Amino acid sequence: MKSTLVFLAQGFEEMEAIIVIDVLRRAGVTVTTVATGLERLVTGSHNLTLLADKLLSELHQPASNHFDLVVLPGGQPGTNHLRDHPQVKAWVTHQAQAGKLVAAICAAPLALAAAGLLPGKTFTSHPSVRASLQSQPDSTYLEQRVVVDGNLITSRSPGTAFEFALILTELLAGKEKASELAEAMLVQIN
Amino acid sequence: MKSTLVFLAQGFEEMEAIIVIDVLRRAGVTVTTVATGLERLVTGSHNLTLLADKLLSELHQPASNHFDLVVLPGGQPGTNHLRDHPQVKAWVTHQAQAGKLVAAICAAPLALAAAGLLPGKTFTSHPSVRASLQSQPDSTYLEQRVVVDGNLITSRSPGTAFEFALILTELLAGKEKASELAEAMLVQIN
Repeated sequence: MKSTLVFLAQGFEEMEAIIVIDVLRRAGVTVTTVATGLERLVTGSHNLTLLADKLLSELHQPASNHFDLVVLPGGQPGTNHLRDHPQVKAWVTHQAQAGKLVAAICAAPLALAAAGLLPGKTFTSHPSVRASLQSQPDSTYLEQRVVVDGNLITSRSPGTAFEFALILTELLAGKEKASELAEAMLVQIN
Repeated sequence: MKSTLVFLAQGFEEMEAIIVIDVLRRAGVTVTTVATGLERLVTGSHNLTLLADKLLSELHQPASNHFDLVVLPGGQPGTNHLRDHPQVKAWVTHQAQAGKLVAAICAAPLALAAAGLLPGKTFTSHPSVRASLQSQPDSTYLEQRVVVDGNLITSRSPGTAFEFALILTELLAGKEKASELAEAMLVQIN
């Protein structure tokens, strides 16, 4: 059984988080949502409040945890909270060093930049934060809806969240499962 | 300021509810989420728990309320709960009689059928519940991603939820606002 950790910080983008969580659960992946603040109830950037499964402080250290994938939803101020959170930084750094999957959508690649994960990588982001990300050394910025570079997966916006979730499904549960879900959910991909 | 009521019953489909709520809030529409059960915390069909703004029992009677749009997300057993709830039935019936907008996605047209709103109408639903809906007198079932027939708007699945939300945006906030949001969110519509 594959496992995924999704960080929820105050001001996260609700569609980006929930499409990923819901689609991965449909694929049979165990998804754990963790609140990065002091409470399990976390309010997103469009005033929807979600009850996270756990507090980040309740998890063990990254080194003793084994998630196949860690996901950073976008939205503001959610992205800034993820970027500035020492434990989130430690998690994504450890995850990347272990060669496991790290995924970020919309503005959230800013948090990957702060953790030092983007130099030398090919990635995308929401167009509005492109300028802040272009100074990453030896990196290539693509205007693609989803970009996969090794264990790093990035995407752009709520409107690309289904494609993002389906690529993550493909990586964790196979191409056949991803196609089956896309068809069952009537997702159109060009 | 336009207003929308979204019903949340245990087992609602999270993406269908949240895409509509989030997109309409981006459009400047006041969206109120109401839990149809006894608690404001409502768990969806993929184990995501959302805190609703209000309990349905806290709202006044439909006749004294003025929402421009009422939305029924799909999912199971959420749809069955909506279908069997006398107050939900009263709300959608009143809403339709007042000539205001009623929208349902996925399996939720079953709840509209139970409220007697489908005879003589053109509509769609999730393919899996088509057979249960085809006996509606004088009705026309379309295999379209979103169907608008007067004040009745229906759609099919999580994968059609962005198109559904954008049509609702168009009806409440205009075509220009809907286009602007589709572009900002990078939604691709064929």
